[in-house]
Amino acid sequence: MIYLDHNASAPLLPVARAVWLEAEDRYPGNPSSPHRLGARADTALDLARQRLAAVLGGSSHDLVFTSGATEAVTTVLHHVAGDADPAAVVWVSAIEHPAVIASGRAYFGPRVRLMPVSADGVVDLAWVSAQFAVERPALVAVMAANNETGVLQPWRALHERCAAAGVPFFCDATQWCGRLPSAGLGALDFVAGSAHKFGGPRGVGFLKCPARVTLRPLLHGGSQQAGRRAGTENVSGVLAMLAALEWCEAQLADGGLAARLIQRERFERDLLAALPAVRLTGAGQERLWNTVNVIMPELDCRQRWVVKLDKAGFAVSTGSACASGTEHPSHVLTAMGRSAAEAARALRFSGGWTTSEIEWNALLAALPRLHAELAQAAAVSGER
Amino acid sequence: MIYLDHNASAPLLPVARAVWLEAEDRYPGNPSSPHRLGARADTALDLARQRLAAVLGGSSHDLVFTSGATEAVTTVLHHVAGDADPAAVVWVSAIEHPAVIASGRAYFGPRVRLMPVSADGVVDLAWVSAQFAVERPALVAVMAANNETGVLQPWRALHERCAAAGVPFFCDATQWCGRLPSAGLGALDFVAGSAHKFGGPRGVGFLKCPARVTLRPLLHGGSQQAGRRAGTENVSGVLAMLAALEWCEAQLADGGLAARLIQRERFERDLLAALPAVRLTGAGQERLWNTVNVIMPELDCRQRWVVKLDKAGFAVSTGSACASGTEHPSHVLTAMGRSAAEAARALRFSGGWTTSEIEWNALLAALPRLHAELAQAAAVSGER
Repeated sequence: MIYLDHNASAPLLPVARAVWLEAEDRYPGNPSSPHRLGARADTALDLARQRLAAVLGGSSHDLVFTSGATEAVTTVLHHVAGDADPAAVVWVSAIEHPAVIASGRAYFGPRVRLMPVSADGVVDLAWVSAQFAVERPALVAVMAANNETGVLQPWRALHERCAAAGVPFFCDATQWCGRLPSAGLGALDFVAGSAHKFGGPRGVGFLKCPARVTLRPLLHGGSQQAGRRAGTENVSGVLAMLAALEWCEAQLADGGLAARLIQRERFERDLLAALPAVRLTGAGQERLWNTVNVIMPELDCRQRWVVKLDKAGFAVSTGSACASGTEHPSHVLTAMGRSAAEAARALRFSGGWTTSEIEWNALLAALPRLHAELAQAAAVSGER
Repeated sequence: MIYLDHNASAPLLPVARAVWLEAEDRYPGNPSSPHRLGARADTALDLARQRLAAVLGGSSHDLVFTSGATEAVTTVLHHVAGDADPAAVVWVSAIEHPAVIASGRAYFGPRVRLMPVSADGVVDLAWVSAQFAVERPALVAVMAANNETGVLQPWRALHERCAAAGVPFFCDATQWCGRLPSAGLGALDFVAGSAHKFGGPRGVGFLKCPARVTLRPLLHGGSQQAGRRAGTENVSGVLAMLAALEWCEAQLADGGLAARLIQRERFERDLLAALPAVRLTGAGQERLWNTVNVIMPELDCRQRWVVKLDKAGFAVSTGSACASGTEHPSHVLTAMGRSAAEAARALRFSGGWTTSEIEWNALLAALPRLHAELAQAAAVSGER
């Protein structure tokens, strides 16, 4: 099976696996326990926090380990809602992950304002500037890179504008971390990340929140993590997450990015040459090197594509895995102006650092062949 | 190091370790993904839910996998608060884990009524019956076994009384599961459990909540777990948790309980013979076979005991690890009528299935020796 669904979940990196195993042996204690094994686990967590701060920038005191990005995201909205005026609105980009939109709706109901995006899937900075003249939201939430399209968002510029307006800025960096350098994210007000998107284990993530802010915790109980998140810390998960993140950052530091971008561009060019009716999503924009989102030709239905590709040995997705149980067209593509019919033909291919050129080439060879089969089947059945 | 702090965190069982590793290889996909690897992971989760239901009793549809007991506990209080009358009270036993008391306070503020316990640390059933004549709480929360004392609580009787009164009953079974048979817990309204207390990995647990109840989720986002808990499921963690729980249940089915109870009683008898000034907590009550809580002689301070034992190679605790960062005397021992001075001399020894008789005997030999050293040091310094 050629696995091209890293944006849903990346396989555990060998380095993360080794670190997880080692940590279970070395740090079996509860970090809150008063003996040496407890203290050793607590020290390991502190060091992990410092290592994460070194990757993101900013202070280790600002970092909270969570069970994943969803918990981190919900915590941010929970916190902001607790402090906000009852009439306060929040701005959430129309292409945010369901966790951000659903958390926003859970805490702010109709007071969630969806920020428009361009046809290429980028948040509209002009709208932001104009809207700041009208109102001050309690929070602006825009992801770093979109999970369906890979399109990068202008988070640095958004942070500047928010800071100038005195509005906290939240960046869900779940798809960015491990794929592009995370340096600078630590300067933002709130950041969420998830280990399993970059080769760490499932069930662990992080939240950046300034230590000067008295965070309203989502989970209550012990005084773990300076009272910001109760519950025994997942020591092995945290250490494995750090190992995976640092490994990915090392790929970037070693110049891995340029080659991957060239590879993606060649894949896209060759795909469009083989199937000219394919439409590339976010074509004109800076996008993650690992993600290719396409609208397949009119004849084809994405569900059949996924099944066909699955049988042919390729694990790909129709869009967000978190939304794949639903029948609705992708809210991301809809926000970009795609019709429901177009969105229903979307496919997402997402690889990782460990995905080889051979694997991308195999997909490239399979797509025209499977398209011909689908077209033939459609012609036989008289289907349009 | 002889590890006698299982109630804080139990070391990962070899079977759980093996299953975790195997699961990372076999189920790398996101259970929500539309391809075979996703479906395979989703099926594995479903089977795990059925296996957990087989252990607890009840339906697999009632089970939600969480990041641990703290998340499960907070979810219950969050859910009940959302549905409850604004004036509703909740009854929480005075010896609950901090997660339950703090969650109760977070959602119900002063409307948390602490249920009294006997001097031996058992919730007062007579109080429950009398109080039901006065008011109907929105929830009754009593743990299955206390984390500090090991004293078992009458959860079956409590459930009966709550059911008769039409009040939902929540049982935090974190210290019970894996130590005593979990059968019957699935019949209760709400149950919380945590993998790392019985040899599964940290960062994973479960919540039992009837499927007929529309649970108000704590985490928002995707439609995972029937919309009851958003976030990519920790597949490997869940499978490792089940492996650990089933392994513990097999120890119980193999008759492991009787020998452990005899071992604990012998340990306690020999300890009291060697140090007659030691006072056993909950002596007259049914208690977990793995837990011994003692008030050390008046001369001794528990902090020095923990340090001395640590240096001598024993990892033990003063009480709840989750409360160990605090300077306050144990709320559990205080609720049982112990003075702050007595509570300050408490020590908790908690082993596991893998703790050998040799290890318990080593502790038994060390305690009188260290007591003599502490007494001598106190005499030299003129300290009382």
